[in-house]
Amino acid sequence: MKKSLGARTLLYPTPVMLVGTYDHDRKPNLVTVAWGGICCSQPPCIAVSLRKATYSYACIVERKAFTVGIASENQIKIADYIGLYSGRDVNKFVETGLSVVRSDLVDAPYAEEIPLVLECRLLHTLEIGLHTQFVGEIVDVKANPAVLSQDGLPDMLKLRPIVFDSAHHSGHRGYHGVGPYLGEAFSVGKK
Amino acid sequence: MKKSLGARTLLYPTPVMLVGTYDHDRKPNLVTVAWGGICCSQPPCIAVSLRKATYSYACIVERKAFTVGIASENQIKIADYIGLYSGRDVNKFVETGLSVVRSDLVDAPYAEEIPLVLECRLLHTLEIGLHTQFVGEIVDVKANPAVLSQDGLPDMLKLRPIVFDSAHHSGHRGYHGVGPYLGEAFSVGKK
Repeated sequence: MKKSLGARTLLYPTPVMLVGTYDHDRKPNLVTVAWGGICCSQPPCIAVSLRKATYSYACIVERKAFTVGIASENQIKIADYIGLYSGRDVNKFVETGLSVVRSDLVDAPYAEEIPLVLECRLLHTLEIGLHTQFVGEIVDVKANPAVLSQDGLPDMLKLRPIVFDSAHHSGHRGYHGVGPYLGEAFSVGKK
Repeated sequence: MKKSLGARTLLYPTPVMLVGTYDHDRKPNLVTVAWGGICCSQPPCIAVSLRKATYSYACIVERKAFTVGIASENQIKIADYIGLYSGRDVNKFVETGLSVVRSDLVDAPYAEEIPLVLECRLLHTLEIGLHTQFVGEIVDVKANPAVLSQDGLPDMLKLRPIVFDSAHHSGHRGYHGVGPYLGEAFSVGKK
């Protein structure tokens, strides 16, 4: 018999996405976002949700573009810092020492040291409530060669992405690593 | 210098969500979905994307409700099975031996044995391309007491959710476990 926990945003796993934008004056910024995910295969699209109060919100509305960077677990301090402070008050690239790269495809920046980056063109904006969802078409993915496997695609255990524990309203909010390989998808369940 | 991988749905981590629905004749069904995530805190909402060709698509459109179940890593064969076969051809509850529970809050079923379930009322439908995104308001979360910590919220290392490796168009598609705790969110990055 299950126990009711109330209406809460409890999903496992959730990603740690570093969303990159330019503001009105082309100052680059990053913000840490856990609310989002892939939302379409063709065209390839990703959704990220932001509160209107965030500095990044107006940047996406104006530039109609953003990047999504996936940090490795050895970058958790940087990923956490980027979620703690506002681009209104600090230049997070300067404070973290990350190098700004201007996307050659969309009007948004990303960090050279973050190993995987999705470059996105704004496709849809959906007002939901406290958060607004931005759907971006992924126009390219760029990766640090060190996180790729022989076939040229990311290797989960080289990339070592961070898993966010979203159990908020509690002392739980934390980060986990990715664990061992369990089995092949579209295969282990065959009958 | 980063390498271009092309326009692909490469996000890490992505979840393994078992989406529960009733069809026109109230036959219960489950489908495995990796495209989705939390999209709003207030009201608490989750997005799941499905192709129109799926059996579950019409169920959500008709019933305006769905559930999202999070399986534990020892249930990967079940989670994979549910993504391999169509509810048009089989009754997946019968085939997997999962027990159907009818939600008391929304017009959708879930499986008693899947340890965490979000009960959702359809709020928005967004046509994106090959996939349609369904945004559901989370009206309750129900959990197996064995996956909860002392404060009554899920414990990541008791729940042991599955992480999907979405590097498709390759031989990579696989499942991973969740790894060790790395640090406290909104804390380790403080300056």
